[in-house]
Amino acid sequence: MKATIITIGDEILIGQIVDTNSVAIAKKLNAIGITISEKLSIGDSRDAIIATLDRTIENSDVVVITGGLGPTKDDITKHTLAAYFGSELKYNDVEGEHVRMLLARRGIEFTELNRHQAMLPECCTVLHNAHGTAPGMWFDHNNKVVVSLPGVPFEMEHLMDDEVIPRLKTRFTLSDIVHRTMITRGIPESILAERISSWEESLPDYLHLAYLPAPNVVRLRLSAYDVDKQQATQRIEEEFAKLNAIIGDNIVGFEDATTERLVHDILIERGLKLAVAESCTGGTISAKFTAMAGASQYFMAGITSYSNAAKCDLLGVSMVDIECFGAVSEVVALEMAEGARRMAGADYAIATTGIAGPGGGSKQKPVGTVWMAIATPHGSRAVMRNSGTDRSQIISRASAYAIEMLYEELKKN
Amino acid sequence: MKATIITIGDEILIGQIVDTNSVAIAKKLNAIGITISEKLSIGDSRDAIIATLDRTIENSDVVVITGGLGPTKDDITKHTLAAYFGSELKYNDVEGEHVRMLLARRGIEFTELNRHQAMLPECCTVLHNAHGTAPGMWFDHNNKVVVSLPGVPFEMEHLMDDEVIPRLKTRFTLSDIVHRTMITRGIPESILAERISSWEESLPDYLHLAYLPAPNVVRLRLSAYDVDKQQATQRIEEEFAKLNAIIGDNIVGFEDATTERLVHDILIERGLKLAVAESCTGGTISAKFTAMAGASQYFMAGITSYSNAAKCDLLGVSMVDIECFGAVSEVVALEMAEGARRMAGADYAIATTGIAGPGGGSKQKPVGTVWMAIATPHGSRAVMRNSGTDRSQIISRASAYAIEMLYEELKKN
Repeated sequence: MKATIITIGDEILIGQIVDTNSVAIAKKLNAIGITISEKLSIGDSRDAIIATLDRTIENSDVVVITGGLGPTKDDITKHTLAAYFGSELKYNDVEGEHVRMLLARRGIEFTELNRHQAMLPECCTVLHNAHGTAPGMWFDHNNKVVVSLPGVPFEMEHLMDDEVIPRLKTRFTLSDIVHRTMITRGIPESILAERISSWEESLPDYLHLAYLPAPNVVRLRLSAYDVDKQQATQRIEEEFAKLNAIIGDNIVGFEDATTERLVHDILIERGLKLAVAESCTGGTISAKFTAMAGASQYFMAGITSYSNAAKCDLLGVSMVDIECFGAVSEVVALEMAEGARRMAGADYAIATTGIAGPGGGSKQKPVGTVWMAIATPHGSRAVMRNSGTDRSQIISRASAYAIEMLYEELKKN
Repeated sequence: MKATIITIGDEILIGQIVDTNSVAIAKKLNAIGITISEKLSIGDSRDAIIATLDRTIENSDVVVITGGLGPTKDDITKHTLAAYFGSELKYNDVEGEHVRMLLARRGIEFTELNRHQAMLPECCTVLHNAHGTAPGMWFDHNNKVVVSLPGVPFEMEHLMDDEVIPRLKTRFTLSDIVHRTMITRGIPESILAERISSWEESLPDYLHLAYLPAPNVVRLRLSAYDVDKQQATQRIEEEFAKLNAIIGDNIVGFEDATTERLVHDILIERGLKLAVAESCTGGTISAKFTAMAGASQYFMAGITSYSNAAKCDLLGVSMVDIECFGAVSEVVALEMAEGARRMAGADYAIATTGIAGPGGGSKQKPVGTVWMAIATPHGSRAVMRNSGTDRSQIISRASAYAIEMLYEELKKN
């Protein structure tokens, strides 16, 4: 069973927004055994929509479209679909009342444009959008299914879960898709590929191996399409067990585990507490840990000490040291980490202080200079890394380095 | 001049990664006057790559491809392109030495797989990748250009900037594309559309209007393709001036300004200082402010007081109040905001405390309950909002609400 996902909107084609809708839709379809053969984004253009529908309906069983269902003139998806399927738009009382009620609740007048949102193609099955004013539409066409959903992510997700997925399960006989990802660290992709090449060659045809490299990490994904879930999962487990015999020391996790997730698991397992002191990373490290459910078991406090006064008052950094060595220095990084560990009553603390730019750099300490420190029950240490020239890149790399430092430290003990 | 962007990789089709490459490429091409007619993602499949190339070369002047250039067996883009353009792969000494040197610097052995990365189609112009081991490739084909770039974002961006964009500018005669976005607040999309309908109808044909709604905000974008930049920009300014006469009170900014950007500008303009105390949002609010260059002018400190002890020790919250009212309460939210304001010597402080879940909810305080408080020179106040049920959504909404509160407060004074 194959699907195509189409996202409609000029804002996608000019790079004004990042398309996350198609990611969510792909995951949900994969989870019920539907393979995505293609994802594409086109503009708010009648001709583009029609040409794309012609082609993709030919190649797939299911076409899921998002976007272009708003009340304004640039939203043309609904009209185009009605014309494409040779259907008239007709006012739908139930949806009209729903829109009126939603607006009334927010104190917004019901206008002709809103009334138009309840005008729907006669030939479609209306998918009620409990969370917004644009209903979804389901078209049955030559044994294929075309679904049109609003582009607001929250509304799209609810319509997928509540309406589209249950109907697809009823409509088609679906087999399973299984993906499992193993995370390795410390072996470069090319070396890893050589070390596991005979294992790779012995894989059954229905298991597809993908290498997903990132700095210091390579993910190995095994995928099986059109299979029995239980059997495929068991076979993948067996294959992963064989890998464990070859590269066991380098396997650090499974699925979407990140370095912060590895740290999170270790801290919880060992009952250790963490504190974070951030200057240039500005709260990013704290946000990464606290994004994970269960972080409150070990995350005591994060202190974004952006001003020098905050470094002294909140972390006990010495103002004399800031004046002597500068806020971006080994001494201050160490004092920040030690201060955070002490103030928060934590076992481990990490700290960052650097020049995120674009201003504030000097010849000796150019933009991108970041000192990172770790304070542990066994002592403290600091390292300096240059993290690039772009502010957001500097913040993201410095955060990653600092978390990496903590992970390496925890692995040692 | 039209382009198609193709991203290759099964990981995109199964929703394992968010495709940001095509966003960056679209922006860069738009900036030199090339329109994107379609963006698409396909799997690591020879047949899919060939069928897609056949179709898109037909419809566009430039095709930019990313992904599938790694050293392992699942990377098939290079072989497929060589076969497609009827060319043999040949070892390229310069690129081979570059790969060898890059690996040597990282202490990695140069293997047969790495050697293979320097095997390149004879018919292409090699685009040297200073930052990675996979070179880019530029194919001239029937007056069209096909470019293949590695999928690592950082390497792709450098190759676009250093190699692809300069060559496209030389190769084609390009006109301009102009996009300008105005941000409005406080008028629902349908009401806004009615209020500006006669303005909209009087727009010249070459100016395309798009409505981009978000909670409480509607962006209006005017786009002009295939124009003279200066003239089009001037006309858009004139049209925005007319809008200013109609909805001036609701215009809050331009381009990609966010609420935190509006707050940032006001704080700098008035010389005011900010502090943030976060519990459930875990550093996200601090990270949003400090992501902006110049934040050090006003951002004093952010305190992620995750534990109760941190709330007391770092913010001066009363432990008795935590015990009486709970950490997620109006009293504690107010004490957090006031404490942050006092401890950091700030003029304004905002605070969040809530239940981000999935655990920790109760009947009285279900997951998603968030108290937000603001402390100002004129007093403090707190509000409670329910922010959904999903952890990441709760964090992101609570952060947005709190920043919104601060913005509304600053607007009043």
